Amino acid sequence: MSERSAYSHDSLRRLVAPRSIAVIGASPTPRSLGARTLANLERFTGAVFPVNAKYEIVGRHRCFPDIASLPETPDCAILAIAKEGVEAALQACAQRGVGGAVIYASGYAETGNEQARQAQERLAAIGQAGGVRVVGPNCAGIAAHRDGAHAAFAEFLTALNANRPGVGLISQSGALGLALSQIATQGTAVSHVLSCGNSCDVDVADFVSYLADDPACGAIALVFEGLASPARLLAAAQHANSRGKAVVACKIATSVAGAAAARYHTATATGDTPALAGLMARAGIVAVSRVETLVETAAFFGKAPPSRSGGIAVVSSSGGTGIIAADTAERLGVPMPQPSAPTAALLKAAIPDFGAARNPCDATAQATSNAQSFLDCVAAMLADPGYAAVVLPLGRTMAASTLAPVGALARAAGKAVCVVWMNQAIGDNGASDIAADPDLALFRSMDSCFHALAAWLNRK
Amino acid sequence: MSERSAYSHDSLRRLVAPRSIAVIGASPTPRSLGARTLANLERFTGAVFPVNAKYEIVGRHRCFPDIASLPETPDCAILAIAKEGVEAALQACAQRGVGGAVIYASGYAETGNEQARQAQERLAAIGQAGGVRVVGPNCAGIAAHRDGAHAAFAEFLTALNANRPGVGLISQSGALGLALSQIATQGTAVSHVLSCGNSCDVDVADFVSYLADDPACGAIALVFEGLASPARLLAAAQHANSRGKAVVACKIATSVAGAAAARYHTATATGDTPALAGLMARAGIVAVSRVETLVETAAFFGKAPPSRSGGIAVVSSSGGTGIIAADTAERLGVPMPQPSAPTAALLKAAIPDFGAARNPCDATAQATSNAQSFLDCVAAMLADPGYAAVVLPLGRTMAASTLAPVGALARAAGKAVCVVWMNQAIGDNGASDIAADPDLALFRSMDSCFHALAAWLNRK
Repeated sequence: MSERSAYSHDSLRRLVAPRSIAVIGASPTPRSLGARTLANLERFTGAVFPVNAKYEIVGRHRCFPDIASLPETPDCAILAIAKEGVEAALQACAQRGVGGAVIYASGYAETGNEQARQAQERLAAIGQAGGVRVVGPNCAGIAAHRDGAHAAFAEFLTALNANRPGVGLISQSGALGLALSQIATQGTAVSHVLSCGNSCDVDVADFVSYLADDPACGAIALVFEGLASPARLLAAAQHANSRGKAVVACKIATSVAGAAAARYHTATATGDTPALAGLMARAGIVAVSRVETLVETAAFFGKAPPSRSGGIAVVSSSGGTGIIAADTAERLGVPMPQPSAPTAALLKAAIPDFGAARNPCDATAQATSNAQSFLDCVAAMLADPGYAAVVLPLGRTMAASTLAPVGALARAAGKAVCVVWMNQAIGDNGASDIAADPDLALFRSMDSCFHALAAWLNRK
Repeated sequence: MSERSAYSHDSLRRLVAPRSIAVIGASPTPRSLGARTLANLERFTGAVFPVNAKYEIVGRHRCFPDIASLPETPDCAILAIAKEGVEAALQACAQRGVGGAVIYASGYAETGNEQARQAQERLAAIGQAGGVRVVGPNCAGIAAHRDGAHAAFAEFLTALNANRPGVGLISQSGALGLALSQIATQGTAVSHVLSCGNSCDVDVADFVSYLADDPACGAIALVFEGLASPARLLAAAQHANSRGKAVVACKIATSVAGAAAARYHTATATGDTPALAGLMARAGIVAVSRVETLVETAAFFGKAPPSRSGGIAVVSSSGGTGIIAADTAERLGVPMPQPSAPTAALLKAAIPDFGAARNPCDATAQATSNAQSFLDCVAAMLADPGYAAVVLPLGRTMAASTLAPVGALARAAGKAVCVVWMNQAIGDNGASDIAADPDLALFRSMDSCFHALAAWLNRK
């Protein structure tokens, strides 16, 4: 089992992008997993088939007593039922020819109980034998923005801007996936939220493989505890990279105490973290250590052009934030060369005498009242062949309209522009406008920004 | 000069807590520094005296031609005028007996020009000779919440909850102070925002000394580039500690490139960072390396009881966040011992079988629908003598009413409770409610939380 290759996009399509979904255990009981699942399917454009022998109608859907009596074979079945009924229901799915199953029930390998572990293995075997790809058990479900295919009890948030790709988020933990997906309320496009819990069959590597070939996904954000097969993830990540998609990963359970907690969580063997980190780096996976920086880093890679030679230029309206940028760049080994003489002359012409016409460029507080001075500095830096990217630390809110021309300049120059939001009015709409811009990457930490830039420069 | 002690609270009172403020260069011109300053004084309960020979009235105030003609001597004068007029105006302030002056003008030592440096020294000398405490030049001003004394052109935000103390924020950079002060929109109480720019007279150490004896301030957050006298800061910090107030500091310009940028910013000699770090640690100053964690760390110290023996307990509704807590604690050397047998029994009774009745305690997603189960776990951990503090990672929004009893439990137990907001709907109101709670500390990063706890445990 552990030596199989990652499932292909096509082999997971009925699971992740279904045209029809059965909800086994559908229920009108408020807050029940069945009711929450149906509510999450409100936006689904395909057919929904509630299955529950107790009801003839659930919500606005006709309800069926069992899988066998459905009018058509669903692509995906959600098992929103207690552990006791799961095995039989999965058997019924296999007999009916269902393409994928999502199993919420807990009480399997994560209990540490041998019988429970064997029960989990039986689920995997049923899926293998019947050609049903199984997500879970002990999972919160999966959600694809396209067609509203949210096969989940967790209220995962997804959002896409126009037809542009978003971040595909993969999380072993459903709760972490739920928490991280909330960034979709802040302007960041999220194409998928895929959780896999105990991963008896489909695991994070399979989801990487799936997203590599999904055009709605522009970059992959992955948080996981451990892997059945590191080789599978590495191959899937290389496949994603070959499709032009970065895989950004946060490996948790890196400590002795964290690994112990992971055994109670998803029964995951967390592996040799340093060895895995080395393998991941060689496979081109971008590592982040703080989970709160995962999605913003992936969003950057989804927007940035291919990496190019050169250093980083910083333009700020505050000397203090420029200093922090310079400190962070030096600490992380990111080059911040001085501008060429012509660039320096352009900077000098654009800013007051008491500013700093260098790198970092301090356009001074005047930039907040004279946007043109700020934009002139950004344009000068983007035009300088010594720079691959420009970082704009924003200490105070700047109108989205001010920064709007910057994205077009960056695109024309084939360079990356990162805005670092130093303002602690952290839910500010100005930040959302930047995050939603197809050509501007938003970071909420200078450290996170320069870690991403270091990884980006090293990809060339 | 560099060897004097820090100014006492009393000697800075007319500057920071004035009963009357003159605005030299007051102006009705929109966006002028004078107009912005007057707007920021709207809430000031004392007398405001605009000074400008061009006007008889500015806004709703009578305007005076010069300092000499004011009907009374102002405690504080703001010099919102261009560099050319600053020296004469400061002389006039000294002659009139003004207690403190705030100088906005740039173009002094930060230009690197010798004449400009001498001009700055003359300002310091005028202040010394006349008994006027001088803030600046090249500064954005200072703001005290009490009485609305915002002697600043920057729109610093301050806010206090009832009569409880808040964080006193000191920033050499006005723009950074402005950016960080926006946390006051997110529930965190901020008593002061004090910037000092080039620091020709009053510097960050003096402000620490001032805040040590201000009851509106419960903890001090400090971000700075360099110090004229490290000994002055260390003594001031020890004085603050003796008043029960932690000083949390973020030293920037720690790199070669950052130090170069600082010379252009505030003409600060940034010093030997590793040596200073050692001195600061011995003086009980809590260091943070990422500026975005500065104010939340100070707010924690302002709320936490005196440090006590023991380890840290973690209760989460998500196994994933518990794993991250365990990883972070182990990496930072923070003990997370297992609960006593009676505590473990209480946990086991409170959570489902598939949860983890240990440390970290995974109360599972059930905790989000059954708040009592979560609260029972928190109460059990707070009652266990092995723990000094409890960390609650929140992956999804939990109603403030759910957590409200936790603060009272923590206070009764004399223990600290930290909520780590893992939810990336980062401007969510739920977080503001937690930040505003007098007994709950809010962190937006697990790393920041455990760094603060490590420092707190080490203070005992």
